[in-house]
Amino acid sequence: MLTHEEKLGRYADVIVRVGLNIQPGQELIISAEHQTQPLVVEVVKKAYDAGAGLVNVMYYDDKVSLARFEHAGDASFDMTPSWITEGITKAYEAGAARLAILGGNPALLKGQDPEKIARLAKAAAPHSKKLHELITSNHSQWCVVSYPSVEQAKMIYRSEPQTPEEEFADLADRHFPERLVMDLWEEIFKVVRVDDSVADPVSAWTTHNDRLHSWADRLNEARYESLRFVGPGTDITIGLADGHQWNAGSKPGLNGIDFNANLPTEEVFTTPHKDRVDGIISSTKPLLYRGQKIDGIVATFQNGRIINFTAKEGEESFRKLIETDEGAARLGEVALVPHSSPISQSGLVFCETLFDENASCHIAQGQAYSFCMEDGTPEEKHERGANKSDVHVDWMIGSDKISVFGIKDGEEVPVMIDGEFTW
Amino acid sequence: MLTHEEKLGRYADVIVRVGLNIQPGQELIISAEHQTQPLVVEVVKKAYDAGAGLVNVMYYDDKVSLARFEHAGDASFDMTPSWITEGITKAYEAGAARLAILGGNPALLKGQDPEKIARLAKAAAPHSKKLHELITSNHSQWCVVSYPSVEQAKMIYRSEPQTPEEEFADLADRHFPERLVMDLWEEIFKVVRVDDSVADPVSAWTTHNDRLHSWADRLNEARYESLRFVGPGTDITIGLADGHQWNAGSKPGLNGIDFNANLPTEEVFTTPHKDRVDGIISSTKPLLYRGQKIDGIVATFQNGRIINFTAKEGEESFRKLIETDEGAARLGEVALVPHSSPISQSGLVFCETLFDENASCHIAQGQAYSFCMEDGTPEEKHERGANKSDVHVDWMIGSDKISVFGIKDGEEVPVMIDGEFTW
Repeated sequence: MLTHEEKLGRYADVIVRVGLNIQPGQELIISAEHQTQPLVVEVVKKAYDAGAGLVNVMYYDDKVSLARFEHAGDASFDMTPSWITEGITKAYEAGAARLAILGGNPALLKGQDPEKIARLAKAAAPHSKKLHELITSNHSQWCVVSYPSVEQAKMIYRSEPQTPEEEFADLADRHFPERLVMDLWEEIFKVVRVDDSVADPVSAWTTHNDRLHSWADRLNEARYESLRFVGPGTDITIGLADGHQWNAGSKPGLNGIDFNANLPTEEVFTTPHKDRVDGIISSTKPLLYRGQKIDGIVATFQNGRIINFTAKEGEESFRKLIETDEGAARLGEVALVPHSSPISQSGLVFCETLFDENASCHIAQGQAYSFCMEDGTPEEKHERGANKSDVHVDWMIGSDKISVFGIKDGEEVPVMIDGEFTW
Repeated sequence: MLTHEEKLGRYADVIVRVGLNIQPGQELIISAEHQTQPLVVEVVKKAYDAGAGLVNVMYYDDKVSLARFEHAGDASFDMTPSWITEGITKAYEAGAARLAILGGNPALLKGQDPEKIARLAKAAAPHSKKLHELITSNHSQWCVVSYPSVEQAKMIYRSEPQTPEEEFADLADRHFPERLVMDLWEEIFKVVRVDDSVADPVSAWTTHNDRLHSWADRLNEARYESLRFVGPGTDITIGLADGHQWNAGSKPGLNGIDFNANLPTEEVFTTPHKDRVDGIISSTKPLLYRGQKIDGIVATFQNGRIINFTAKEGEESFRKLIETDEGAARLGEVALVPHSSPISQSGLVFCETLFDENASCHIAQGQAYSFCMEDGTPEEKHERGANKSDVHVDWMIGSDKISVFGIKDGEEVPVMIDGEFTW
């Protein structure tokens, strides 16, 4: 039996060697929430062990973010620390790798003014545009991973107490929240393939990457013009961009170094055509957008654009999202994930897109990934259907009741039946 | 009786209103060790309450720094994150205020290769030169404050256990180190004038600043050519720069805003003449330089320069310091602090210059403060005696056995007798 510390060390090792594949002498920039320090320190050690030249940790702090909303004057919400973003951009452009460790309260900004949240994003956007472009074009290696928080664990495992037994459990959780966090750690260790069942995490990732690559190869060979999703509350045809490329698992960046941008990853994904999405589609899991929960979306697309929608929860947040800019109401990604994926099988809603998108077929509002297109200039890719936006926000549309058909020359070929690949 | 949280809130309030005197709409950049979060969050709240436009927190992390020394390859020690320094410089130049919250293990790098420590500083120096100049010329408000750590508390209150009783106390400290930290907090709250004995901390600081200003006024009127320090192991004449200015307490920056650069502050200080220091001088308290303790310095100056020295502890570190560049062996500051200052009266060695320099007369190797000189270009100030260097490191030379004489036109006037001002 591995101790928690040993599993944390394995996780850090997989992040450095599989996620980032850090190179000798390379610079690494880590963005991480303040409470994720135990993992940050392990990653720093492993990165230097792997030969990293310089590791910079940029901690952000939920408590500091919340203090701004609760204490700052109105004018603050149009200000942004452009000098930090520009510095990170400069380092990334010069070849630094980038790691983001998510790990705060997923609903931190619940109850805060969505107008202020949107203004902050708008103030930041022009300064982060370049960084956004470098990342979406895989200029060098980048990786997003997660660290559990007490707040996330409570959201996952506990609903509002309804019975005396639940109230007692709730009380216990409030006094010993670490119990829930340790349960969540076990799920994370399992889905990132570093738990006791795995003899050698790095070679388990090689095997998993091979399998994901085989999915992308099949779909790239098939060259479907569009995908049709059919299921409860969903019948939609998502046209694929001309010259779209399917991707899955590890992939070389423009610098030629293989890396895994997300740990875990269970998806095969490509670029929809920004003007060729038509039909109705329903979300199957909630998403958290800027700390606000959005659930039960039913959206109608016409010529690629959402023309109307409803949501059971967070309707206003979803409206703000798709009104960010012209591209935000259109799609930048479509992804297939089998219902049998380990994350889906956990039966949990993690309230974090990094996990939840890997439990379910999903689409993303906003910016397309330029590496999910055949070569060309950004303008050429845009003309071939790749969407442009300052945002990229995934939402989940898969389940064991959803089937997916590939359409080519008017013929529909089953790709997934009841949430599973047909091959 | 105020609670700990109330005193922490008062401390944050004094930092924001007295130390920084933050202005409506102004940006603030906070550098702080990871464990100082409780004070950071309070300062952020108070800064926004005072109208700050944007508060950026740049956490650094002792554990990350140590991981570099223990895991990084040799080449890492010539690398520096210039993009962060340049970003902060840009923000400070544009008018941001700057707060540093010290608060890690003061002896973090004890036992690490001094060569590597020096190389890191050398790699950083060309990039931090501009920032250094902006700060030493008080471009806008800046402030340095302290937060206790377990390691600091142990250094202050405990020596190596010698008896069974001391071993028992040591064991207890290891299991309940918070006890020692709370003792240290009480000392800090006292010397920054926010403890129970103070009715209104901000007005107590106004009174204290008035007293400090009166010392500076007296010394500026006297216009001594040099100061002679006499005591055990010390007989030295420190020439003052032509056109030197004495400063103490709050002072307006170049932007016209009054601020206190150090909390606490008990000193009145000016610029020595870089070529006119002659005699022998002994340190009276240890200093920590880059995490290494230096104690028992005896140095001989000739024409402003250290020509030889010994130290009971950390001799190699002191040598590295004064060999940093040509100016590092010469003085950039001389300061008078009465032995009756509250910090001195605590009887503690805080192992942190911010406190220890305010318990004792002191001098600094390296860079002079340009605001401690009458107006002129940097070159003119240098010609009038103001020293130039990439470093500015204080060491303590005062005690109740040291007397100080002001020399003018060949006449010696007593300024301090046995550590106390004569006025």
